[in-house]
Amino acid sequence: MSESILDTIYGPEDLNNLSIIQLEKLAGEIRELLIHTIAHNGGHLAPNLGVVELTIALHKVFQSPKDKIVWDVGHQAYVHKILTGRRQDFSTLRQFGGISGFPKRCESEHDVFGTGHASTSISSALGIALARDISGDKYNVVAVIGDGSLTGGQAYEALNHAGHLRTNLTVILNDNEMSIAKNVGAISEYLARIRTAPTYSKVKHDIEYLLRRIPAIGDSVLKTAERVKDSLKYLLVPGILFEELGFTYVGPIDGHNLNTLMEVFYTTRSVNEPVLIHVITCKGKGYSPAERNADIFHGVGPFCVESGKVHKNGSTPSYTQVFGDTLVKLAEKNKDIIAITAAMPEGTGLKKFASLFPDRLFDVGIAEPHAVTLAGGMATQGKIPVVAIYSTFLQRAYDQVLHDICLQNLPVIFILDRAGIVGEDGATHHGVFDYSYLRPIPNLTIMSPKDENELQHMLFTATTMSKPVAIRYPRGCGPGAELEPKIQMIESGKSELLRPGTDAVFYSIGAMVEPSRAAAELLANRGIHAAVVNARFVKPLDGEMLRKLSHDYGVIITVEDNVLAGGFGTAVLEYMNTQKFNWVKLLRLGLPDEFIPHGQRSLLLEHNGLSPERIAASVESFVKHSGAKG
Amino acid sequence: MSESILDTIYGPEDLNNLSIIQLEKLAGEIRELLIHTIAHNGGHLAPNLGVVELTIALHKVFQSPKDKIVWDVGHQAYVHKILTGRRQDFSTLRQFGGISGFPKRCESEHDVFGTGHASTSISSALGIALARDISGDKYNVVAVIGDGSLTGGQAYEALNHAGHLRTNLTVILNDNEMSIAKNVGAISEYLARIRTAPTYSKVKHDIEYLLRRIPAIGDSVLKTAERVKDSLKYLLVPGILFEELGFTYVGPIDGHNLNTLMEVFYTTRSVNEPVLIHVITCKGKGYSPAERNADIFHGVGPFCVESGKVHKNGSTPSYTQVFGDTLVKLAEKNKDIIAITAAMPEGTGLKKFASLFPDRLFDVGIAEPHAVTLAGGMATQGKIPVVAIYSTFLQRAYDQVLHDICLQNLPVIFILDRAGIVGEDGATHHGVFDYSYLRPIPNLTIMSPKDENELQHMLFTATTMSKPVAIRYPRGCGPGAELEPKIQMIESGKSELLRPGTDAVFYSIGAMVEPSRAAAELLANRGIHAAVVNARFVKPLDGEMLRKLSHDYGVIITVEDNVLAGGFGTAVLEYMNTQKFNWVKLLRLGLPDEFIPHGQRSLLLEHNGLSPERIAASVESFVKHSGAKG
Repeated sequence: MSESILDTIYGPEDLNNLSIIQLEKLAGEIRELLIHTIAHNGGHLAPNLGVVELTIALHKVFQSPKDKIVWDVGHQAYVHKILTGRRQDFSTLRQFGGISGFPKRCESEHDVFGTGHASTSISSALGIALARDISGDKYNVVAVIGDGSLTGGQAYEALNHAGHLRTNLTVILNDNEMSIAKNVGAISEYLARIRTAPTYSKVKHDIEYLLRRIPAIGDSVLKTAERVKDSLKYLLVPGILFEELGFTYVGPIDGHNLNTLMEVFYTTRSVNEPVLIHVITCKGKGYSPAERNADIFHGVGPFCVESGKVHKNGSTPSYTQVFGDTLVKLAEKNKDIIAITAAMPEGTGLKKFASLFPDRLFDVGIAEPHAVTLAGGMATQGKIPVVAIYSTFLQRAYDQVLHDICLQNLPVIFILDRAGIVGEDGATHHGVFDYSYLRPIPNLTIMSPKDENELQHMLFTATTMSKPVAIRYPRGCGPGAELEPKIQMIESGKSELLRPGTDAVFYSIGAMVEPSRAAAELLANRGIHAAVVNARFVKPLDGEMLRKLSHDYGVIITVEDNVLAGGFGTAVLEYMNTQKFNWVKLLRLGLPDEFIPHGQRSLLLEHNGLSPERIAASVESFVKHSGAKG
Repeated sequence: MSESILDTIYGPEDLNNLSIIQLEKLAGEIRELLIHTIAHNGGHLAPNLGVVELTIALHKVFQSPKDKIVWDVGHQAYVHKILTGRRQDFSTLRQFGGISGFPKRCESEHDVFGTGHASTSISSALGIALARDISGDKYNVVAVIGDGSLTGGQAYEALNHAGHLRTNLTVILNDNEMSIAKNVGAISEYLARIRTAPTYSKVKHDIEYLLRRIPAIGDSVLKTAERVKDSLKYLLVPGILFEELGFTYVGPIDGHNLNTLMEVFYTTRSVNEPVLIHVITCKGKGYSPAERNADIFHGVGPFCVESGKVHKNGSTPSYTQVFGDTLVKLAEKNKDIIAITAAMPEGTGLKKFASLFPDRLFDVGIAEPHAVTLAGGMATQGKIPVVAIYSTFLQRAYDQVLHDICLQNLPVIFILDRAGIVGEDGATHHGVFDYSYLRPIPNLTIMSPKDENELQHMLFTATTMSKPVAIRYPRGCGPGAELEPKIQMIESGKSELLRPGTDAVFYSIGAMVEPSRAAAELLANRGIHAAVVNARFVKPLDGEMLRKLSHDYGVIITVEDNVLAGGFGTAVLEYMNTQKFNWVKLLRLGLPDEFIPHGQRSLLLEHNGLSPERIAASVESFVKHSGAKG
């Protein structure tokens, strides 16, 4: 242990005096730390194993925090964190109160810009560079972006702008041929062509053809022509797309060769214009289970280091699985059903669908706006597109949901997985705004199932509605409800009474129905008898039920895992206001007006008053003070 | 008049038997109709004058509605409307109940996909094409997209996907070297290089250099080399960027030559893969004032055909002007202020700023997501970026506002011009969702001025707050308040009492304060004495004032030009609920849960109950029924 190099690293300046051999040893030690920490805490293993050398070389050549390094998405910034003063806290990775799994400005001056969603890094890096220029400062700004993130339109918007302004900016394209799943799209094929440059056959063939057509020169010149061809390939082939956008292209270079990386960084550091360095890395590098299954080890829960087996959590199928299985069932009977994912076929549960109906599954890359409008186009031709996007990522296609789907009242189904509190991925990944941002949109039906069984019914129902529908459910497993073999229709806008009561009534939605029921049980032991209604619909609300509950109980508690501002409880409040049910005492439980940090999901729910015990306590206090009960 | 060809056109099939000479005559007649209708109604003149021949050729060669034509943005679809059965209604363009200024599915089967915001057409066209393939149908799908829209990332996401799938899809790049303002960005420079292809100097120079380095060939081969160069230019230069993305590039071709256009469309119609046809057009073609000032005549109010002079409406400076002038004033003293626009320097009032501080004005193209994140990067380095984006377009950067600015609590100022009801541009352009989608975002301050004078104070205040701020105001002129020479600070979260009363109190926001004051006057004549408070802030609310009003009046009326769901009135309602002010009778006036069509702004406000008279009537009824009076 005394020989550990990693133990001597407290900041990037500690890399200064290390030799290449020492740096290579350091890379190995960092990989050990990554594997063992993530095996325990869960996290983004494969992306970080892929950038160990790249990150070391960056911090060796550039002087953070004077030079600014922006990590696109940021799930690959663990090595950066280890090298910039957070090695000793690394065991707290992704835990409540511990260090975040993404760059955070409040965590370190080396985290110059917080990230979490893809394709933003070139924009923010350019912003930093322009501020630098205006202030007359001198430093380097580096954006590290994966080839997956390059499928997002914002990256292109930023390249287009940066290439035009021609200021000093370095973009490192970390090309591992993956985003989360295997990459799709023409740009990814383009990168593949660069990687295999010597056989870039189209141009080669065309030039050959041209040269052969030159008359009266004959074979002696053909040999020369070979050299012209080779030079032309070097000159024109790799990276011309980036060159056309105003960047100087360098690469492709081996992202696991420290010598090469450092040499290229030293050389380009002083180039005073936009440079794109194309670095080839291997996702999962150095840990064979992760190299073999980079998509599983992209973001992974706790696993066994020796076997590479991921620990199972939950014995029941997750919401994601239920969605995926149900969609397959429905798609077998209804040929109009089409599935669309933005680079998340695995995460959204569409793998089975993809293998059974490859012609009806479209993975568009990390391009949510395109995914939504594409679905709109399909819907005009009688298809029923099911767009499966995590709640937090649908924020990226808000205008498209509004205009391209709902304004035209097209039958597109939005599946919002990972809604509510997602846990360890933290503030950038919680899906706690969707009720609020979707509810103002006309024509949209919004529902959320209380359990797995209801999810299958809701999905089926949505496919029959011929209008825009959003279904949102949380990460992981639900209460474990058995799936009824026969899928049923749910009447639009109808809630269901789950438990009778006398003193108050819970009007709860989605993942908060079960905790409400548990809270009702706790309350019963304290002499407060609360009924429980599963709201099912956020929009349209069940006016008939709410009218009855208002008259029968007068005390209503809404519970949601969404921010309170504009959310589900507010929808109920607006209803009461419009109906002038002024006598109703309404308690809205939900998330506060602040960004929720990372940590275990149950812990975060507890902290925010949404565990059964804390719900019960809030209701007890409310009922007592509202005069409904003693 | 009997010789008019246009009078014989009731649908695209009527083009079938027309000769080129007749079609050219038709083009002239359409231009006349465009100029005279828009001179009267206002509208997008220059874009439509630019696509007369293009649209005629499209409808001559493709068979709409069997073949599908999608118009990006859609403001250039007037000619399409004239040719597809709407000629006789064209005089109702943009008027309430008349035909829309944008494609609308409900208006015609020829409008296959509704548009209004830029860069969506390739996505929806690809969706249509894929639905066609799955159904085994045969028809052509054409997306017509301007070079301006090509700066939006979604267009690139769609090109990337389409080029990968390689299905039959035609993209027509309508290149007029403009979006609304003069285009920016590397892609626009790239297109300019194509347009001037023979002097594509970099490649030429490089090849020349290479060829000269080939030894032992000498001058005799250099002549041959010239030919190689010429061929290479043809082979490699135009459109390689699109070719790399999987499209077959055709062009550039003259967009005002009907023969050429039709010939190219006939040829490419049967190509069974993605084709991009690069068409060069002149914005404003055929009407010299519009050719000379294409940005003014992009979207224009009524004007005099003979002089080309735009009729002035309003004698006071518009909110847009006040914003622009104030920002200049502030920027003179505060060197950290930077202005960012997404292709709208004129529309957002930044022209003066641009001419005085060219180094601190960034036009990023039609790329709202990039604009916002760019501002975030600048803000990390001590700058105060002011991002001026119309309310409706900020929807395109929702995730960036949330994550890149507010999550990090960065001091970026969002200027939401054209908020509320914009009028003739209709459903895609009303800014009626912003309070609802911004309010759930933590850390964000949201304000709206009651008049021009307050706007300057709010803007100054925002620059001092060191946190994210949104300021929203409507299109056009305000009440005409005189601008105080000394700009003042407004205390955060503080409202102001404008008029005392006894029976009820208006708590109104922004552009609805003045109509509320007018309504209060009408009510006074009917014996109801309503106070008027200018709320100023949507977030944070003025809790102290609301508490006082709740106690003093008990009847509160909120008025906003935003949808009611989750809006400003709901914020007040949430406050009452949280504070348990159950005795307060709250009437929320605002827009209903439906998309508002196009028409005159005052007419639409009236229709939606937001004119002084209708506000007064609602309040009178509410006060009488709430028991406060009568």
